[in-house]
Amino acid sequence: MINQHIIRNIIIETPSKPGNFAKVATAIGIAEGDIGDITTLKSGALTTLRDISVTCKSEVQLQQVISNIEAIGGGVKILAVTDDVLKAHEGGKIAMKRRVDVRSLGDLQRIYTPGVASVCMEIFNHPEKANYFTSIGTSVAIVTDGTAILGLGNIGSVAGMPVMEGKAVLLDQFVGLSGVPILLNTSDPDEIVETVKHIHQGFGAILLEDIGSPHCFEIEERLKAELSIPVMHDDQHGTAVVALAAVISACKSTGVDPKKAVIGQIGLGAAGLAICRMLMAYGVEEVYGIDRQEDATDRLVNYGGKTKATLEEMMESCDIIVATTGVSGLIKPEMVRKGQIILALSNPNPEILPSVAIAAGAAFAADGRSVNNVIGFPGIFKGALDAGAKEITYPTLIAASLAIVDHTKQGELIPNPLDPTLHHHVARAVEEAANSAK
Amino acid sequence: MINQHIIRNIIIETPSKPGNFAKVATAIGIAEGDIGDITTLKSGALTTLRDISVTCKSEVQLQQVISNIEAIGGGVKILAVTDDVLKAHEGGKIAMKRRVDVRSLGDLQRIYTPGVASVCMEIFNHPEKANYFTSIGTSVAIVTDGTAILGLGNIGSVAGMPVMEGKAVLLDQFVGLSGVPILLNTSDPDEIVETVKHIHQGFGAILLEDIGSPHCFEIEERLKAELSIPVMHDDQHGTAVVALAAVISACKSTGVDPKKAVIGQIGLGAAGLAICRMLMAYGVEEVYGIDRQEDATDRLVNYGGKTKATLEEMMESCDIIVATTGVSGLIKPEMVRKGQIILALSNPNPEILPSVAIAAGAAFAADGRSVNNVIGFPGIFKGALDAGAKEITYPTLIAASLAIVDHTKQGELIPNPLDPTLHHHVARAVEEAANSAK
Repeated sequence: MINQHIIRNIIIETPSKPGNFAKVATAIGIAEGDIGDITTLKSGALTTLRDISVTCKSEVQLQQVISNIEAIGGGVKILAVTDDVLKAHEGGKIAMKRRVDVRSLGDLQRIYTPGVASVCMEIFNHPEKANYFTSIGTSVAIVTDGTAILGLGNIGSVAGMPVMEGKAVLLDQFVGLSGVPILLNTSDPDEIVETVKHIHQGFGAILLEDIGSPHCFEIEERLKAELSIPVMHDDQHGTAVVALAAVISACKSTGVDPKKAVIGQIGLGAAGLAICRMLMAYGVEEVYGIDRQEDATDRLVNYGGKTKATLEEMMESCDIIVATTGVSGLIKPEMVRKGQIILALSNPNPEILPSVAIAAGAAFAADGRSVNNVIGFPGIFKGALDAGAKEITYPTLIAASLAIVDHTKQGELIPNPLDPTLHHHVARAVEEAANSAK
Repeated sequence: MINQHIIRNIIIETPSKPGNFAKVATAIGIAEGDIGDITTLKSGALTTLRDISVTCKSEVQLQQVISNIEAIGGGVKILAVTDDVLKAHEGGKIAMKRRVDVRSLGDLQRIYTPGVASVCMEIFNHPEKANYFTSIGTSVAIVTDGTAILGLGNIGSVAGMPVMEGKAVLLDQFVGLSGVPILLNTSDPDEIVETVKHIHQGFGAILLEDIGSPHCFEIEERLKAELSIPVMHDDQHGTAVVALAAVISACKSTGVDPKKAVIGQIGLGAAGLAICRMLMAYGVEEVYGIDRQEDATDRLVNYGGKTKATLEEMMESCDIIVATTGVSGLIKPEMVRKGQIILALSNPNPEILPSVAIAAGAAFAADGRSVNNVIGFPGIFKGALDAGAKEITYPTLIAASLAIVDHTKQGELIPNPLDPTLHHHVARAVEEAANSAK
């Protein structure tokens, strides 16, 4: 659901007079550049220096932003245009670090040879102690074959590494787990399943990431069946957890009971199918799904879902619409039913703009900018590992959704992913759900 | 070469009078306990509290140490016996940590979606940039199948994890590399080679560790042939690098030219065979090897080495003897030739005690306590990665040995592994050797 954005930091000098910054902001806005963080680097008597982060959709648009600023005149100057995104990735975003220091030969004997042998024997004699005396129980393998990196498609797992490292950064920062990227050089389901089986012992859980549809379904199901540690394809179930939370929050805002609503899912890729399954598992009685590809619809029907003949019929008959097609503008204003809830989640361009949907009569409408699975996966894995769960089940995923809803402010769709308590709240809910199922 | 040791920390209170600590040290010494680090926890007017690290070879011996101390009387008291080795391993010794912080939504957009997409595309369009914008170029997979963990044998890769984590600690602390343990659940060479090939793209180099003989030979050779990143089995070549350094240093002490000496290697397991190959690559003209197993001797002959009919003949005909058999006391004093150099490297009990060898006429004798591959592998991998080397060759390994010799003080066999300049010195030597071969 995510396409490429160009993010640049523009270093701008303006004369220190009120109104000058507004001219810069206007110049960026006219070119439809999206202004992000602004840092004041220097606030002098004569001039002020600011670092303005601007997101554009194309190089052409970025050049327009730059020439609009240059056209202001009156002392407004661009000093530099930097690529802070690339800078943030220099040298990679993660590293395996020691939790103990070796400061003496005594330390070396304790953490390495000969002392380490007694720890090995302790684990050999009591295998469950590997959880106490190694990092296995707090490690998550982040496994990709590179076939569906973000919305970029099959660019290979090495080019996808920045995404995997990003997930490891978030696991570390939000819940203190150790995320280890595993970049596969094969997309053959048999080879992927075999490889993950051969290396799984070193990890407490497996996070499958950016593996394309339809082989993602087979791979996840086979690994779940064959391994006794939690396995989750985040693009399916992580996204579905957050989507379910968004649906429940939207229903809260509009006084609708989601379980009794008729819900239509447009687009049945990895995310769309998982959202349907999650809604059914949550107890929504009527879930419909639609996709241009027949085998996608067949999969939904196999899981107990229902379908509609046309997009128009779907839009007419459903109280709530969730769309994950990647097709900008797919939903026309005239298709919107009065009082409908519409979550058009495709990024960066939704199936219908929220403002257009509301103008066409929708009771609630949102796009996918905030519906990011960073809200879900850190807490889900932390909770599952803390519980010593052998798998991640629907009850635990629904517990995660409800914890997210609990943490969402009245009138908002989704909580702030940087809220430090959110992820621990999700983790505790997942842990409790996993424990109560034992 | 390493067997299990019992390391305990004994917390002892003694009256604050001169001579009391000597009584404690004597009590430990009588039971043949090996005293390590001693920390004074409290030095009061009446009593002194010390934490004494003691290494024993068995539980029985440890009990003897304890009862000897308890028998001292006169206010000497054991307050606690702790297992600081296990404590140092609690929670594991490593964790994947972020190198960037997410403090704002702007940060999240930079390091994760949507900004990360531009970094992915940069790598997709210029694959060599993965070295700059990911951690791949500074990561080393530490791969084991658990079949030869230290001297403990085939205890499985999970029980071997504390060793793999130990190596990762040393890679981080000594040269800043990111070591990632990969615990295989198979010891089948075909499956190991396939698995490592499928995941190798995520790493800059592969360190094979504690994989048993003879399948370690086939696995390493196949991986070296099939992958275009450095692959090294540390138990072979890392050990051989340090052994070559020890041989050269011993020759320096005794004025012998190692290349013109006749060198005999007793024991042709993974380490022994690699030491023979390293000596031949270094230019030693006459290298003989011997092993009780015929296929081990055959392997040496295949690599161009020579053999002797009996241990006695070997001892009689060689100027320098290196032994890695694991058989304590294998070399009898009457076998020692006058003026011989003997490195009896088996741990913890050498083939002949250095004092016995010297008394029997050896010019130089040492055991394997200090000959630890921690001296070699961190710098070898750092240098190979810094050079962008596609493989680790004999010239680079010999450069590592010579750098170690350069760093060894006159009269010593091996430098202190905690010397902070040693590993960078080795890394620079390896980098230069790898670059000059390009």
